[in-house]
Amino acid sequence: MTLAQLKERSLLGLKDLDKEEIESILERAAYWEKHPVKVHGGQQGKFAANMFFENSTRTRFSFEVAEKRLGAEVINFSAAASSVEKGESIYDTVRTLESMGIDVGVIRLKPTGLLAELAEKIKVPLVNAGDGNNEHPTQALLDMYTMRKQFGSLSGLNVSIVGDILHSRVARSNLWALRKFGANVSFCAPDNMQAKELDAPYISMDEALKADVVMMLRVQLERHESGMLNSAEAYREQYGLTAERAQRIAPHAIIMHPAPVNRNVEIDGDLVEHPQSRIFPQMENGVPIRMAVIERALS
Amino acid sequence: MTLAQLKERSLLGLKDLDKEEIESILERAAYWEKHPVKVHGGQQGKFAANMFFENSTRTRFSFEVAEKRLGAEVINFSAAASSVEKGESIYDTVRTLESMGIDVGVIRLKPTGLLAELAEKIKVPLVNAGDGNNEHPTQALLDMYTMRKQFGSLSGLNVSIVGDILHSRVARSNLWALRKFGANVSFCAPDNMQAKELDAPYISMDEALKADVVMMLRVQLERHESGMLNSAEAYREQYGLTAERAQRIAPHAIIMHPAPVNRNVEIDGDLVEHPQSRIFPQMENGVPIRMAVIERALS
Amino acid sequence: MTLAQLKERSLLGLKDLDKEEIESILERAAYWEKHPVKVHGGQQGKFAANMFFENSTRTRFSFEVAEKRLGAEVINFSAAASSVEKGESIYDTVRTLESMGIDVGVIRLKPTGLLAELAEKIKVPLVNAGDGNNEHPTQALLDMYTMRKQFGSLSGLNVSIVGDILHSRVARSNLWALRKFGANVSFCAPDNMQAKELDAPYISMDEALKADVVMMLRVQLERHESGMLNSAEAYREQYGLTAERAQRIAPHAIIMHPAPVNRNVEIDGDLVEHPQSRIFPQMENGVPIRMAVIERALS
Repeated sequence: MTLAQLKERSLLGLKDLDKEEIESILERAAYWEKHPVKVHGGQQGKFAANMFFENSTRTRFSFEVAEKRLGAEVINFSAAASSVEKGESIYDTVRTLESMGIDVGVIRLKPTGLLAELAEKIKVPLVNAGDGNNEHPTQALLDMYTMRKQFGSLSGLNVSIVGDILHSRVARSNLWALRKFGANVSFCAPDNMQAKELDAPYISMDEALKADVVMMLRVQLERHESGMLNSAEAYREQYGLTAERAQRIAPHAIIMHPAPVNRNVEIDGDLVEHPQSRIFPQMENGVPIRMAVIERALS
Repeated sequence: MTLAQLKERSLLGLKDLDKEEIESILERAAYWEKHPVKVHGGQQGKFAANMFFENSTRTRFSFEVAEKRLGAEVINFSAAASSVEKGESIYDTVRTLESMGIDVGVIRLKPTGLLAELAEKIKVPLVNAGDGNNEHPTQALLDMYTMRKQFGSLSGLNVSIVGDILHSRVARSNLWALRKFGANVSFCAPDNMQAKELDAPYISMDEALKADVVMMLRVQLERHESGMLNSAEAYREQYGLTAERAQRIAPHAIIMHPAPVNRNVEIDGDLVEHPQSRIFPQMENGVPIRMAVIERALS
Repeated sequence: MTLAQLKERSLLGLKDLDKEEIESILERAAYWEKHPVKVHGGQQGKFAANMFFENSTRTRFSFEVAEKRLGAEVINFSAAASSVEKGESIYDTVRTLESMGIDVGVIRLKPTGLLAELAEKIKVPLVNAGDGNNEHPTQALLDMYTMRKQFGSLSGLNVSIVGDILHSRVARSNLWALRKFGANVSFCAPDNMQAKELDAPYISMDEALKADVVMMLRVQLERHESGMLNSAEAYREQYGLTAERAQRIAPHAIIMHPAPVNRNVEIDGDLVEHPQSRIFPQMENGVPIRMAVIERALS
């Protein structure tokens, strides 16, 4: 396999991925959703390594279910129970698993930029499962898949993303990918959570509620100790999707959230399974999306 | 699947389960013990999620071995390495795994009562692997299975359960299930470890040793810091199965313990593999019992 | 299976293993390297339990990949997430897994000597994955396999092992096994890291660099707080394989390290993937070696 071919099979982000390539992943996910093989989807004998250098429940399980449905063998690595504690570098760990003959590596990392560096050196396809504050492409893919199931097309769709844009890899991957499909993405965030380098309009909470898709982000209050929004109550009051605000959303609109949810902070607990919420369907869609992405990496 | 059918396949406890239903689980376990398929027992392509919100070694492994022998795929979740730490609720975690398409959930929880609540909301069968201080049905099933192998029938059998009855889900499940089969269950416990609400006689240690089955419970001394039994030595002296006391047990009687054992606290180390002890056979019997329970859930 | 047969299938160390037996493992590993089945190598339906009472990344994953390629089911146990914390003894844990019907146990332990004791009591083959300061036989086997691939034969080969010999199970297993094949093993270590009981010459760093194989050991500075070598810099200066020292190695010689590497302590970071380094190939060779060892245990 040439380096170019290897890169074609990796999924490091959506920013530099063709619309056609994204389209083909979404379509393959639809295939997997319609053909619910449980295991043995053609990748028997392949090894997938899930390497999570940052904690995760849902993303890791979603990949694990997808990999096992494809018939692959799964090796799970999480930093907490490993010799990374002994000072071993992330690079050495990934190289080690590569040496043992894995066929695809799924990686979540805290330091932004390290993934791109790894992809230059590692000779198996890498799938980005969360890259610092940069991208989280499989999350955006499942978000787009969810929107398409709802609205048929993404073109002209108004999507507002509300919350900590500054630290959000979900916001970045969605912004870059949705635009390729002609969707209009707007952000809504307090000053200290805005990403000034991203070319997207910031709108008020009232404006944000008028969109076709209202996507709430998880807020990590521990990151914002100073400033006026340093309490869960204050955040909820100004930027939370409260039951009251949810009533102002259009009847055809949907509520999304990448989860895990801080109930009663960025979204009221009762709204999580509201008829217009797609939060659990998003997780459901994560499995066929990741099947499509892993299959692409192993193809 | 209707909610009623779903409930029939869950196993939340033994208290409300028919004698006939328990009987059929015990018989199916005997089938699996006699037919030692190692894997591929008819549940290929099914996904079992083991969700342990409380630490466990043996119970989780026992379920995992049972699930794999049935041919199912296994997803292991333990709270320590998960986003439950990030404040995610237990409900959201279980709903997440449900959304990903698992076919059965095995759950161990600390807060009593939460399991029943989950079972109302979750649409896959749930198997109780330890529910606070309420029930631990698969443990009691394997205990009954062990007794039946020894004595043929449970009817008229005298079973004494010794130790921390107050906090014991093992004692509760055994009490409620053994009585359905006509066994006589007695408890032996210091005052501060008695469960006053349970309708069973408390007897002395001397009396307890006269039973057909002497079941010792694990004592968790850290829970009983005050009072006269606050040292391992004091506990052993008054309620431990010492080598000396073991000599007073009838030749036909057996010693049981749900494990893990505190050697030389509730039972002397030398008795763990005593000819009359069934402690390791209990663990052996756990696998076919759990195969029967998981198979029932997946049927 | 008689106890003698059981012992023949266990791998507790290399010191007491015949040269012919080691030879047959190395040859079987070569077979597996040439026949890269990915899974289903004839051990379907068998259960392997990896029981790590000491942290490890690479060794555990290497065994897991090997076991899965052979087609076996894998149960992973690590002490951190288990009831060993609740005071359960190592023996009880291993007996528990044995009771559940595992076919082979892979064990890493801190207390030296406990493995031999376990092997007397446990009725399934045990494979040593790191036994205190005693042996680490699969590491030495993969080291020998790597040397043989390089040099064809081990007879007359000069191997210098540099570092903390005193605490190294890798040094011991290599010493005892390499000598059976006629290799000359020398050690190089500061005074406080020498194992006086081992019958092998200690040589200077300058001498060590003249060997055919320069094997660097991981130094654990936290163990050596007193004395003159208590800083990484001081250690590197006197016993580290620096870029400068690497230039003095013979062109045909190779650099080895059991990993994980402390970059820029016992070996300079740039040397890890130096053309003469076999560090990542060692990890690659670990998989077929462990396939051969596990297959032998399950045969």
